[in-house]
Amino acid sequence: MTHTIDDKQKLLARVRRIRGQVEAVERALEADADCGRVMHLLASTRAAMSGLMAEVVEDHVRSHLVDAEKHPGALDEEAVEQLLGVVRTYMK
Amino acid sequence: MTHTIDDKQKLLARVRRIRGQVEAVERALEADADCGRVMHLLASTRAAMSGLMAEVVEDHVRSHLVDAEKHPGALDEEAVEQLLGVVRTYMK
Amino acid sequence: MTHTIDDKQKLLARVRRIRGQVEAVERALEADADCGRVMHLLASTRAAMSGLMAEVVEDHVRSHLVDAEKHPGALDEEAVEQLLGVVRTYMK
Amino acid sequence: MTHTIDDKQKLLARVRRIRGQVEAVERALEADADCGRVMHLLASTRAAMSGLMAEVVEDHVRSHLVDAEKHPGALDEEAVEQLLGVVRTYMK
Repeated sequence: MTHTIDDKQKLLARVRRIRGQVEAVERALEADADCGRVMHLLASTRAAMSGLMAEVVEDHVRSHLVDAEKHPGALDEEAVEQLLGVVRTYMK
Repeated sequence: MTHTIDDKQKLLARVRRIRGQVEAVERALEADADCGRVMHLLASTRAAMSGLMAEVVEDHVRSHLVDAEKHPGALDEEAVEQLLGVVRTYMK
Repeated sequence: MTHTIDDKQKLLARVRRIRGQVEAVERALEADADCGRVMHLLASTRAAMSGLMAEVVEDHVRSHLVDAEKHPGALDEEAVEQLLGVVRTYMK
Repeated sequence: MTHTIDDKQKLLARVRRIRGQVEAVERALEADADCGRVMHLLASTRAAMSGLMAEVVEDHVRSHLVDAEKHPGALDEEAVEQLLGVVRTYMK
């Protein structure tokens, strides 16, 4: 999916952190933690997941909407930035 | 912003409907309508606004990310559909 | 809906500001403003609407879930704060 | 957190399913699945998490806002339903 080993490692690190957060929710439920704590953990987990989603979408827009080898320079950078600005706002 | 008169008229009709919905919220508050009604009106208005946002984003992606005259065929249709699928899900 | 004249005036001021924002979107579309500007205006309008929604929900929780005259002290303040913390996070 | 063994088991089953979904995202990234697939998996996972959040919030509202033993009948059922209607809409 991603184009560089680095990007892949970064995304994997993020998704593993999210898995850890989901496991924390699971442990909190098992331990009968109070509702407030469970809601707080869930809200953080969802925020982390939205952040990951925004990053994957950004990667998708930059890498896949246009084949840069066949159509170099075709992607309008300013329009991309405007789109990603909206995406980041909505996926927070 | 839009490329055809038709698209523009469609978006304008949508935004005017949203203005009408906001005015209905205003009237409900002025008339001391109950909270439940105000929350319901606000939820519908927000949904309408998200729908409009999704349409404007779609228009933006299809029309502005690539200058189709200079780079015909550069925009990958499948990748666009994948992106818009996510956008629609998030902007509901 | 609200319990004091002040609260009502505050909510009305907010909803009128939102109406003004929707009208700005309308004018931007009429004037063929660029997509980026329209998306930006829409995002701000939606954020303002979410903020209003969070306030109405808060008012609803504090004023209507329990009839304070019949059941004084029945509403658990800490549980209310936990709930509203989540509501504010989600309605941003 | 929850009041019955059944509720707890139901929530635990949900959070474990979500963990499985996060693991599927991880595997997809490791296997260099295409962006579209990763975005689709992430969107489903986030939807499942929002559904769980809505359920925990509902549980919180029904069980913790009012101590039903000390203040029986204090929670206004209609107002609760109006609140939860909004919560479900926003947490989808």
